[in-house]
Amino acid sequence: MKILVLNGPNLNLLGKRDPGTYGSGSLKELEDFIRDEFPEHTFLFFQSNLEGELINEIHKAMEMGTEGLMINPGGYSHTSVALRDALDPVEFPKVEVHISNIHSREDFREKSVTGAVMDGIITGFGKYSYVLGVEALERLAE
Amino acid sequence: MKILVLNGPNLNLLGKRDPGTYGSGSLKELEDFIRDEFPEHTFLFFQSNLEGELINEIHKAMEMGTEGLMINPGGYSHTSVALRDALDPVEFPKVEVHISNIHSREDFREKSVTGAVMDGIITGFGKYSYVLGVEALERLAE
Amino acid sequence: MKILVLNGPNLNLLGKRDPGTYGSGSLKELEDFIRDEFPEHTFLFFQSNLEGELINEIHKAMEMGTEGLMINPGGYSHTSVALRDALDPVEFPKVEVHISNIHSREDFREKSVTGAVMDGIITGFGKYSYVLGVEALERLAE
Amino acid sequence: MKILVLNGPNLNLLGKRDPGTYGSGSLKELEDFIRDEFPEHTFLFFQSNLEGELINEIHKAMEMGTEGLMINPGGYSHTSVALRDALDPVEFPKVEVHISNIHSREDFREKSVTGAVMDGIITGFGKYSYVLGVEALERLAE
Amino acid sequence: MKILVLNGPNLNLLGKRDPGTYGSGSLKELEDFIRDEFPEHTFLFFQSNLEGELINEIHKAMEMGTEGLMINPGGYSHTSVALRDALDPVEFPKVEVHISNIHSREDFREKSVTGAVMDGIITGFGKYSYVLGVEALERLAE
Amino acid sequence: MKILVLNGPNLNLLGKRDPGTYGSGSLKELEDFIRDEFPEHTFLFFQSNLEGELINEIHKAMEMGTEGLMINPGGYSHTSVALRDALDPVEFPKVEVHISNIHSREDFREKSVTGAVMDGIITGFGKYSYVLGVEALERLAE
Amino acid sequence: MKILVLNGPNLNLLGKRDPGTYGSGSLKELEDFIRDEFPEHTFLFFQSNLEGELINEIHKAMEMGTEGLMINPGGYSHTSVALRDALDPVEFPKVEVHISNIHSREDFREKSVTGAVMDGIITGFGKYSYVLGVEALERLAE
Amino acid sequence: MKILVLNGPNLNLLGKRDPGTYGSGSLKELEDFIRDEFPEHTFLFFQSNLEGELINEIHKAMEMGTEGLMINPGGYSHTSVALRDALDPVEFPKVEVHISNIHSREDFREKSVTGAVMDGIITGFGKYSYVLGVEALERLAE
Amino acid sequence: MKILVLNGPNLNLLGKRDPGTYGSGSLKELEDFIRDEFPEHTFLFFQSNLEGELINEIHKAMEMGTEGLMINPGGYSHTSVALRDALDPVEFPKVEVHISNIHSREDFREKSVTGAVMDGIITGFGKYSYVLGVEALERLAE
Amino acid sequence: MKILVLNGPNLNLLGKRDPGTYGSGSLKELEDFIRDEFPEHTFLFFQSNLEGELINEIHKAMEMGTEGLMINPGGYSHTSVALRDALDPVEFPKVEVHISNIHSREDFREKSVTGAVMDGIITGFGKYSYVLGVEALERLAE
Amino acid sequence: MKILVLNGPNLNLLGKRDPGTYGSGSLKELEDFIRDEFPEHTFLFFQSNLEGELINEIHKAMEMGTEGLMINPGGYSHTSVALRDALDPVEFPKVEVHISNIHSREDFREKSVTGAVMDGIITGFGKYSYVLGVEALERLAE
Amino acid sequence: MKILVLNGPNLNLLGKRDPGTYGSGSLKELEDFIRDEFPEHTFLFFQSNLEGELINEIHKAMEMGTEGLMINPGGYSHTSVALRDALDPVEFPKVEVHISNIHSREDFREKSVTGAVMDGIITGFGKYSYVLGVEALERLAE
Repeated sequence: MKILVLNGPNLNLLGKRDPGTYGSGSLKELEDFIRDEFPEHTFLFFQSNLEGELINEIHKAMEMGTEGLMINPGGYSHTSVALRDALDPVEFPKVEVHISNIHSREDFREKSVTGAVMDGIITGFGKYSYVLGVEALERLAE
Repeated sequence: MKILVLNGPNLNLLGKRDPGTYGSGSLKELEDFIRDEFPEHTFLFFQSNLEGELINEIHKAMEMGTEGLMINPGGYSHTSVALRDALDPVEFPKVEVHISNIHSREDFREKSVTGAVMDGIITGFGKYSYVLGVEALERLAE
Repeated sequence: MKILVLNGPNLNLLGKRDPGTYGSGSLKELEDFIRDEFPEHTFLFFQSNLEGELINEIHKAMEMGTEGLMINPGGYSHTSVALRDALDPVEFPKVEVHISNIHSREDFREKSVTGAVMDGIITGFGKYSYVLGVEALERLAE
Repeated sequence: MKILVLNGPNLNLLGKRDPGTYGSGSLKELEDFIRDEFPEHTFLFFQSNLEGELINEIHKAMEMGTEGLMINPGGYSHTSVALRDALDPVEFPKVEVHISNIHSREDFREKSVTGAVMDGIITGFGKYSYVLGVEALERLAE
Repeated sequence: MKILVLNGPNLNLLGKRDPGTYGSGSLKELEDFIRDEFPEHTFLFFQSNLEGELINEIHKAMEMGTEGLMINPGGYSHTSVALRDALDPVEFPKVEVHISNIHSREDFREKSVTGAVMDGIITGFGKYSYVLGVEALERLAE
Repeated sequence: MKILVLNGPNLNLLGKRDPGTYGSGSLKELEDFIRDEFPEHTFLFFQSNLEGELINEIHKAMEMGTEGLMINPGGYSHTSVALRDALDPVEFPKVEVHISNIHSREDFREKSVTGAVMDGIITGFGKYSYVLGVEALERLAE
Repeated sequence: MKILVLNGPNLNLLGKRDPGTYGSGSLKELEDFIRDEFPEHTFLFFQSNLEGELINEIHKAMEMGTEGLMINPGGYSHTSVALRDALDPVEFPKVEVHISNIHSREDFREKSVTGAVMDGIITGFGKYSYVLGVEALERLAE
Repeated sequence: MKILVLNGPNLNLLGKRDPGTYGSGSLKELEDFIRDEFPEHTFLFFQSNLEGELINEIHKAMEMGTEGLMINPGGYSHTSVALRDALDPVEFPKVEVHISNIHSREDFREKSVTGAVMDGIITGFGKYSYVLGVEALERLAE
Repeated sequence: MKILVLNGPNLNLLGKRDPGTYGSGSLKELEDFIRDEFPEHTFLFFQSNLEGELINEIHKAMEMGTEGLMINPGGYSHTSVALRDALDPVEFPKVEVHISNIHSREDFREKSVTGAVMDGIITGFGKYSYVLGVEALERLAE
Repeated sequence: MKILVLNGPNLNLLGKRDPGTYGSGSLKELEDFIRDEFPEHTFLFFQSNLEGELINEIHKAMEMGTEGLMINPGGYSHTSVALRDALDPVEFPKVEVHISNIHSREDFREKSVTGAVMDGIITGFGKYSYVLGVEALERLAE
Repeated sequence: MKILVLNGPNLNLLGKRDPGTYGSGSLKELEDFIRDEFPEHTFLFFQSNLEGELINEIHKAMEMGTEGLMINPGGYSHTSVALRDALDPVEFPKVEVHISNIHSREDFREKSVTGAVMDGIITGFGKYSYVLGVEALERLAE
Repeated sequence: MKILVLNGPNLNLLGKRDPGTYGSGSLKELEDFIRDEFPEHTFLFFQSNLEGELINEIHKAMEMGTEGLMINPGGYSHTSVALRDALDPVEFPKVEVHISNIHSREDFREKSVTGAVMDGIITGFGKYSYVLGVEALERLAE
């Protein structure tokens, strides 16, 4: 399965920022961990702090035989109508993941503008949210 | 791992009600499916339409060596402070699951009163939400 | 016609509580009055103060050849997503009734969470709300 | 019994507009249907798209021995304080009816500004809402 | 001074409706009372239950040498943007009056959509609100 | 093309009121201007300050071979559910226009209750909003 | 008639502050003006910037044969529950006045917390609001 | 004095859950403590996690010579219209108590739906809230 | 125990104002009643209608060996951030009391800005709220 | 006339995404269509998914003799204060266009943050919104 | 430069209250520190817990040649319309300062009612907020 | 001290746009002015209209020995959760500045999403906001 994994703003800081909440591994280590857990899949990893670059990448994925999309939109989850509009027409399986539980933090994090157009959301399991996300894509693809 | 699986109101109707949204298998079949996927765990399944009986069951679990809790609180997710207060002091891994994506339906379903005190939430993957939920409990227990 | 009549919380107090608003007859007298007005129908009466027991009864009705459902959900009208979810898949005629006019009282009584999934609502006619409710079921069944 | 039946804006279009929701009979047919169902009563029918003309008619009714008032205020139900103020001092039985269930449509239709000063409301039973409305007037007049 | 006195919906019922709140005199008596109190002014009285007729009258006044406008918009005060737009360009003195104190009743009566474009508002003094209104017009015209 | 042009409350004042915002031409001049710009179409112009008369005119248009509807509902845009219900079943092209930009004024003018059931809205171009509106009708009719 | 005239915060600045809105006369001149207009009444004037001193003065008035109360609570109108509680039990005629029209300014000035317990409110007529206020007291005392 | 003491959801966990907030004694110890403090009264203690069972118990109390009611509705305080409706018609002294101060916690705990129909509320004094509650009942019964 | 008892705005009117709600005894009688009930404590009573004087008194108490604080902030409960900031750092036992039940009155009285920083609140028991308040202080001091 | 045409996020997908709503032509075809319709104007087309690149382009236009600006800000219409601040100082004619009617979709699409600083808005006419937009620029430039 | 420095409620407690947030120096020490930092200016320091006394002081400053005003309104920042009205007409430079960052605390502290009429606000720098405030006054006076 | 100065969207237009509000100097002149005022510090200036580029720059600063951060986030202050999440983990002194007073403009500008995670905010002093911002960084670094 060919899977695009998108990480939004500030996720390039993984491991350096607030390790209590986000864990001590770097984004690179997270990506390697995902690859190791699922050697049977092909992953394309992309991280950007720019809303529009994430949208660009989703558009590209729609043209390039991608079979699954996993995105952690970070802070854009709660505000970006543009990102939602990019995700809406994606027709292959698509999952939103969050490292921390967005229902346990500030009020403005509970609402996911993007989540409304996804197949499902997985939130709160640290790096394992990504593992569960890949498994969810597998199931959705069945 | 000894896992309590709680299903809230109307989940006893699985398979009979709105198969497009909830799937065509019965609750019994769902429970068997979970047992078959995870033969290495011991499951206690409990379904009730009564808010208080769900609370009772959570209290019992806290006394009986339960090692993981997975709950689909159904309609009580969005309204029950009492259920939240029951889940809050649970110290072993606890996961909330939903069959449909609560972020894609009526506005009043996006807010999860109970979810704020869980380790994490998995929503939108049909019966696979439960499978992912068990896997999440395994990861949390590591 | 086989009709289930559900009365929710505190309606067992009819006649004892606030007779100015709710009338002086007991629930038993109300049930007899309904039977007398409609000797051509078969009624099953059920009252409970427990949200989940009302849900259970609706589930049972869906399996037992019931042809019409009339419910006065009392205070649960305004708060219970779980009861709404139980009423939603009912496919035979279903009517919500209220003794007093819910639009003339506290603000929180105007919103009916359950009413949105019913065929219709009749509110404000005292015990006659039930009589009109049965007639509405007859019409819906035509 | 001498009954005034008021129909508000757009109800002159009955039968021509959205028959799935409002039925295929014309307003004239509805009025005939009501007369046929209740030959024992005298009906005065009045329809207007003008808020003020409806108010005028209510004022006239208060002076002319009317014994019952049934009104379907259409879109004015949700906005008209002036119509509410006209209905408030009416001392004979008064019922508000709606063809479709106002609790199942757009949010702004759930609130009935006028309904708060009526004896009761009947909503969702198609043309039978009017029949039930007349019966409600009979009961209120007892 | 040539003064137009506009009375909005339901004010034709003065004396017949809720005398405790609105006094026992008729609209005719109120108009005579105003004329008697101010023999030095010329009054044009107009009452309508139709929002648009009130607007028409305001337009006419702008063309006919009117020197002061006093309006009791009744229920339209709280809802009518159209009436507000008619009153806004009036350049001679303009006063809004209310018989009862709009700040002491239902919440929706405190907001005056029309009042925002008037010179001032006088509310709560029964028929004397009109007397004070004329005096206010005199002062504004100084 | 046979086009009905409806102008709502206070638009009869064009040219007399607030020329900075609404321009210095009269309604008559606006109508002539439209006719001159589009000699190939047949126009029926109607202006009323009465909400119900506008509704009446829409109803008539639905029976009389009208092929396009352009309406400037003025202040009723923001409040009238009844007008919205009249516009909703119109099946030929229908456009809402505003002289000033409703998004740049008071908050309560941004919401268009009627606009939600139109094909489109054109707002902010002075008398040219009407010209663009006719062109929009042409395009919709293609 | 023995009348207490209370002026709240910042009214001691009359004439010095924003003469376009509040006029060019001082508070002293306003008080003299009132005395001159109504030589037949006895006035007690009191101004304070302290919420509690205004409350104290109202309490004293209730004990000292005061026959009428006119208050311009300034900024406290919109916030002071304490002042409202002091005005509520006053049993002799009581009027609230404002120099500018509180309905034409910032949103937070439209709500009068104190006004809800007054006989009436007069707002928008400059120093004449006070003159009208005294006349209102006279009428209320009849 | 014959007093019913009702404890709502999760209060059976006293002593086991969050001792910092709720104290280290069990519910049984709390009940004994109350009995010891007031040997002159007869207590009936009842705890349930089921909303409807609490309602049932209130209904029974109204029939059985109960002279005082003290309730800690736990999480139901903030959501249960049904429980409020059960408490409303109770005519003997009735007091609501809370162990922690509901005004110092999450926003949704400050609103007490049930408290509005009680004689009074005591909140924030740990187990002593119950002692003060009994004393309040004594005073109310005087 | 050395206890400061603060009474806020309008409480000096006790006995004179609305005896149905507030009782017929004066503030002086209330203070004597408290002293008589608790001869073992030393009381300092202070009443003021001025927010700032109440703050001053709290500051003084923090310097003078006070061992308990009971305050009825009256109308300031619902609005005063400044009073809340004064109460927040008080480290000895502190209780807020109200004569009437603040949960049963206008909506704006349910929120207690000050109550969030107190140990607890007692509301609705007339003069006995104060007695219970002293007992609460005793318990908190244990 | 030298016109800059800006298309915001996801408009590069025209023709590929939801053809029912957005039409089947590509962005390239739309641009060609505009050029063909208006051979007398010079167009600069720019599309970006990045909020900041759109801002950059607006800044450039202000320096380069641009005579008209047409923008479809897509999802940024509803959220971007930054884009609004870029559009605000533009002094040549500026029009906002939308392909679908933003008043007929989700609530969050009705509010246009950017629209408040434009000359006008055209919404709901498919690709013809752009044609009307150019005509609007022509009229504004007169 | 002649500068008035106003400190509002509870700032007399500096050094005694919550030193972690507000620092360990007293108000006297803060005032000395400001004087030492700016020997070239003349300072008048005034602190009061009474809203009205702060207003009085502002009024006096307007008459006495004051050249700059720095105020820390404490809790009154968030609620006092009266204080805002006093600050509004001040024509010499005026700055609001806060010791802690009002954007990082409770929601109700983010809104500054008074700040809207100041030249600027400085918030979050401890005692240095005052130093920066004086420098801001210097710059504004240039 | 090594200081990063970030300017957000539209600040590259300084001097060209709305000089009344933002001053007549260019961004380049502002930067030179800052350097001249503080020759003892090393400044890195960066401006971007792209949210993500600002985030990137903050990330880089965290790795490169930066000792102070001053940011004017422009329109992103009010909407960007992503920018807030980037600023939150910054551990060296960080200050937000605004040229105009954000509390005196549109409502949506008063809320600073980013400001909640800064040490402090300085708003309203034109180019001097930046000077004060550097001084604030100096103080914070002490």
